[in-house]
Amino acid sequence: MRDTIIETAQRLFLQQGLRTTTMDQIAESLGISKKTLYEYFDSKDTLIAACADSFLTRMERELETLRSQHSENVLLSMTATASYAYQVLASINPILFKELRRLLPPARAQVIPRIQKLITHHLSRSLEEGIRQGIFRPDLPVDLLPLWVSYAILHIVLNSDFAQQVNRPVAEIYAETLLLLLHSFCSEKGRNLLETYRHSIRKAYAK
Amino acid sequence: MRDTIIETAQRLFLQQGLRTTTMDQIAESLGISKKTLYEYFDSKDTLIAACADSFLTRMERELETLRSQHSENVLLSMTATASYAYQVLASINPILFKELRRLLPPARAQVIPRIQKLITHHLSRSLEEGIRQGIFRPDLPVDLLPLWVSYAILHIVLNSDFAQQVNRPVAEIYAETLLLLLHSFCSEKGRNLLETYRHSIRKAYAK
Repeated sequence: MRDTIIETAQRLFLQQGLRTTTMDQIAESLGISKKTLYEYFDSKDTLIAACADSFLTRMERELETLRSQHSENVLLSMTATASYAYQVLASINPILFKELRRLLPPARAQVIPRIQKLITHHLSRSLEEGIRQGIFRPDLPVDLLPLWVSYAILHIVLNSDFAQQVNRPVAEIYAETLLLLLHSFCSEKGRNLLETYRHSIRKAYAK
Repeated sequence: MRDTIIETAQRLFLQQGLRTTTMDQIAESLGISKKTLYEYFDSKDTLIAACADSFLTRMERELETLRSQHSENVLLSMTATASYAYQVLASINPILFKELRRLLPPARAQVIPRIQKLITHHLSRSLEEGIRQGIFRPDLPVDLLPLWVSYAILHIVLNSDFAQQVNRPVAEIYAETLLLLLHSFCSEKGRNLLETYRHSIRKAYAK
């Protein structure tokens, strides 16, 4: 039951945002009473935290799987990861990015560092692989770059102010950011390869 | 007298930060009474706003001059601009970056958009020049890139949280950010040129 509640609540939160989605609505969607819902989650905040945890756990697993499927070419594995991230981003109501920045401190303290860690972890490994494969420049500042990119994702790509100012969907901002960074990371050999993926990356995102 | 007050106050704010610098200390440094100081500026906030205005006006003028001196090669003009920005950054007490993010809304509304505009204005022109000179890639997303970079400067380079997490001085983070972005902007021709400037950029900043 707990998992079913999380699954339904997560879907509603992603589609409608956190504020609009009420405990009443979640109970109704599940065909259970509000009393039963509160037996599993004593507050909406607890339920949000559980949904965030489930969402991030699934994302961590998916990224690990995608990475293992494309270990021979870092651009291929980053493009696959990006396609997945794009799907996820496109399924999220943009209001959620605004709400994410206004989350109460305990929830922020749970969600933001975990996203940051997910990005830095995968990027550190990708940079290492890319340099070893001759696809990325060997002089990249690998010590501060993963954190730099995690800040760029959190403060530019997932920043609703930025999306509003440039008037573009988050998924497109994500695609352009990815291309911008990949162009910087790539060696000459990498850039030739990147040309092969560039159009598919832009086409996939910039709908 | 007004200009002398601004000059002295600005120096103290930059060296010590906004909070530590008191109106008493400013009056004392100027050898004037606090009463006289308040005749020119009715509050510390007004004085801070005047200092910010003077600081940004000088910066705007300097950048314009530097740009006009290196119009033939965008990398040269961006390196010169960066050297100037480095000097400025190195002369600022890091506490100021923290205070900048906690400024009261009216002051933030004055300072932040002006820094953002300064960056987007110069970068738009530089991107255009660079593409025309064959130094930058012609497929750069010139419509959203200037704002993207202004967000990166404000939310990564000038973000005291980031500096603290990577444990590096702001000037070095600025240099690495500049190199990262220039590598992305450059065409093949540009990258060869960039090699010539790379060491001087890193040496100048990463002291």
